[in-house]
Amino acid sequence: MRVVVPFDPVNPKTRLSGVMSSGERQSFALAMLRDVLVAIENAGHAPTVLATGSVDVSADVVTDDRPLSDAVNAALADADLPAAVLMADLPLVTPAVVQRLCSRPDEVVLAPGLGGGTNALVVRDPRFTVDYHGGSYSDHVEIALEAGLSLGRVDSYRLAVDVDEPDDLVEVLLHGDGKAEEWLRRAGFSIERGEGRTRVVRSKTPAIEF
Amino acid sequence: MRVVVPFDPVNPKTRLSGVMSSGERQSFALAMLRDVLVAIENAGHAPTVLATGSVDVSADVVTDDRPLSDAVNAALADADLPAAVLMADLPLVTPAVVQRLCSRPDEVVLAPGLGGGTNALVVRDPRFTVDYHGGSYSDHVEIALEAGLSLGRVDSYRLAVDVDEPDDLVEVLLHGDGKAEEWLRRAGFSIERGEGRTRVVRSKTPAIEF
Repeated sequence: MRVVVPFDPVNPKTRLSGVMSSGERQSFALAMLRDVLVAIENAGHAPTVLATGSVDVSADVVTDDRPLSDAVNAALADADLPAAVLMADLPLVTPAVVQRLCSRPDEVVLAPGLGGGTNALVVRDPRFTVDYHGGSYSDHVEIALEAGLSLGRVDSYRLAVDVDEPDDLVEVLLHGDGKAEEWLRRAGFSIERGEGRTRVVRSKTPAIEF
Repeated sequence: MRVVVPFDPVNPKTRLSGVMSSGERQSFALAMLRDVLVAIENAGHAPTVLATGSVDVSADVVTDDRPLSDAVNAALADADLPAAVLMADLPLVTPAVVQRLCSRPDEVVLAPGLGGGTNALVVRDPRFTVDYHGGSYSDHVEIALEAGLSLGRVDSYRLAVDVDEPDDLVEVLLHGDGKAEEWLRRAGFSIERGEGRTRVVRSKTPAIEF
């Protein structure tokens, strides 16, 4: 199945600006993208990076600088259905969870992200179109139901954790084992345990410069 | 299967103190507990509330005021294995995800919570004991592996979202449909959409007084 992965190589992950420089955010976003691409390929599917600019990966890249929803809807219209859309900031995805997502038989399959977003979806009917924004999940449910399409929901922690904010980095350090996790450790990030949730800290002397 | 649900009726959910009074936290924690108990019962399993004080629910209640790990280990030692432990602050759990958890064949089954915790587990071998604290998940993995036990991991958003902090309430409003979600709406909580993750706000005139 074609899996479209939207990606912004220019100014990604702005909400990490407090803990990473602009160049670091670009480098870290690319590490997360590569983890996602590996998971898709190892699940036996075919990724296409839908990028706002040039990007250095071995997968197919389509460049489209329109707003996210327009670009994704155009990519879905060009693809043979079924097709999937998977966000690039999901470094915890594994081939197993990509297979769970893609093997659901429903006409539309949605996986929620933390904070109301839609981190992954599968489309089997051209009547479904995407509308990405802050709280897109409930709108995607509505779009599917209004079109009379059957709806499946994938209940996955690994698909729910998109890395947007510093607190999300702890999930990558705890449960990741790919390039993004390695990037964080080399950049001096580590976990700090307390009574409540584990937090992330960054040392002042990272092993590498970005 | 016996499912132990630890619960503190006295001073629960202290990290919600900024948005709820002490009495409200007690009332909201009880609403979440009831959602968890309904999901367990509807999955065909038998919940036991392991409480630090008296609690008004229709399920079995065992009172034990020792620290959490001691109390849970005693409850597991008393139970016929396999047995499960499910946290009381998981109002998004459904019967389907309880069944996914309990049907895994491994000797130890773990479900991660946000921030490194262990939100649910199943034990099929008495050599496994629990050790709850901030970052318990990786310690539970280690305890199982050191005892030579087979380990299963359940990848579930609904099990990962424990409600500890104000940001977690948005997940309940977006994806819950039980007593906890109803409690929040009646108390004046609602979602506020922005460009990033959806946030929660509270009106100054809730529909009910607690």
